[in-house]
Amino acid sequence: MRQEFKKHDSDIKVSIGDDCAVFKDGTIVTKDIFSEGAHFILKKMKPYNIGWRCFAAALSDIAAMAGTPLHSLLAIGIPSELEVEKLKEIVEGIKSLSSLFKVDLIGGDTIGSKFLFISFTIIGKAKKPVLRSGAKIGDTIYITGSIGNARMGYMLLRSGESPTDKFLKPIPKIREAKELIKNYHINSMIDISDGVLMDADHISEESGVGIDISSKDLPISESVIEFCKNQGFDPVFFSLESGDEYELLFSSPDEVDLPYVKKIGKIISQKGIFIDGRRAKIEGFDHFRSEI
Amino acid sequence: MRQEFKKHDSDIKVSIGDDCAVFKDGTIVTKDIFSEGAHFILKKMKPYNIGWRCFAAALSDIAAMAGTPLHSLLAIGIPSELEVEKLKEIVEGIKSLSSLFKVDLIGGDTIGSKFLFISFTIIGKAKKPVLRSGAKIGDTIYITGSIGNARMGYMLLRSGESPTDKFLKPIPKIREAKELIKNYHINSMIDISDGVLMDADHISEESGVGIDISSKDLPISESVIEFCKNQGFDPVFFSLESGDEYELLFSSPDEVDLPYVKKIGKIISQKGIFIDGRRAKIEGFDHFRSEI
Repeated sequence: MRQEFKKHDSDIKVSIGDDCAVFKDGTIVTKDIFSEGAHFILKKMKPYNIGWRCFAAALSDIAAMAGTPLHSLLAIGIPSELEVEKLKEIVEGIKSLSSLFKVDLIGGDTIGSKFLFISFTIIGKAKKPVLRSGAKIGDTIYITGSIGNARMGYMLLRSGESPTDKFLKPIPKIREAKELIKNYHINSMIDISDGVLMDADHISEESGVGIDISSKDLPISESVIEFCKNQGFDPVFFSLESGDEYELLFSSPDEVDLPYVKKIGKIISQKGIFIDGRRAKIEGFDHFRSEI
Repeated sequence: MRQEFKKHDSDIKVSIGDDCAVFKDGTIVTKDIFSEGAHFILKKMKPYNIGWRCFAAALSDIAAMAGTPLHSLLAIGIPSELEVEKLKEIVEGIKSLSSLFKVDLIGGDTIGSKFLFISFTIIGKAKKPVLRSGAKIGDTIYITGSIGNARMGYMLLRSGESPTDKFLKPIPKIREAKELIKNYHINSMIDISDGVLMDADHISEESGVGIDISSKDLPISESVIEFCKNQGFDPVFFSLESGDEYELLFSSPDEVDLPYVKKIGKIISQKGIFIDGRRAKIEGFDHFRSEI
């Protein structure tokens, strides 16, 4: 859609195509929408966790630029059948996470709607914004935390079981991103919202390079491996296609040595995404929809 | 909702409670959402006009602060049954108006949704932002353009007739607002989105004053008067409760003499809204919903 809009001024360093728009003065802005059915199920999640999780997802875009979130605007489409108490709990979830990262709500809008949706605009600052487009051939590719948990969480929800706090109250990796850029050269970064495969592909596309991932190095937690075993899934592909994880995928020429970071591959010259040297097929991830 | 969020920093001069949030450096930000059923009817409007009208509504908040819109972020919830061609036309409508006011699209988000909704975040600048809270007792209250057209437009749409271009392609009063603050002291201003009565009440509330409106001075166009006559409506109350007009309501100690401005009342000490000296009952305006 970018091409369809004429560019009128040059305050902007980066616009569509990264996690945030970046202004020349270091201001960064991101806008996200979340809706019933695609990102959460009102009937199966506590409203508090819906608010928290959606806001975490929006903040995760700020983390992906190694930025600091400062201000937020919130829009909610409210179905008439939603009890006021539940709406308050959604706001409570947003408030808790706002408080944790010291983000001010400065505006927004509410409308009546046929179903619940939530949109955030977050405005922040990044002294050295890390883009998707900076990956260099020879960089090592790293990931924070572990993957597969979000997809497992959705499936547990669907079957009426309770997912872990990592799913219900994810912490956007804002502090981790800052520690990374403080101590290392980080050439490119993205947060895992569409799944490692697709998000790696975004880095590959924007940087004009390829990525080779080593499947044995992927940080898949024991509980996910156990879950996949019971359900008959291949834990590697299950985890590579698990979206809404809000971990960080990044590339660096340095040897990054932090307890929450794992080396999972390298940047190569041949474009595209490879798993253990074999080209991977990238398929669109449709958030919750893929599971319901 | 404002009270529920802790304030963490002091970059912000004005937050929730005005048309835009205002930063100390003159940056202004507004966020709006529009949805099928509440703000437009996909089956009865050209997608181009839906895009134009929603974007005009968002830009109108910038006009209300006498600001210049610079950057926009767009989020669209797209129902699976919406043809790509129609989506393109919506974007075309947004693009035309973006081009007219030189606004850059810098980011956004799209998701699958059960019905169409559109959200804009607009970032602009205002050297001297005009607030809702600045009305002074003794100010004259003015309005731009004419009122009643939007409500008539909706009703024509519903009955399968074609509304005027003023309805289909409203022009946010950005240039007019700038001319106003350049030549006069404007103490308070708001755009007519909820109807004159409710929007006057917002000024009254935020400024701690009252407003007395003279019904015979209201700028109601001939076509609206004719329409009301045929339909059996009182043109004064029909027009006072007509929302989504995107005209400007403002107060000034000066004698404002511009061809598109009409004096309609004055700021008084007794709080509340009065029509010809009689207290008016303010009822919530629910956009389109009030007509369908």
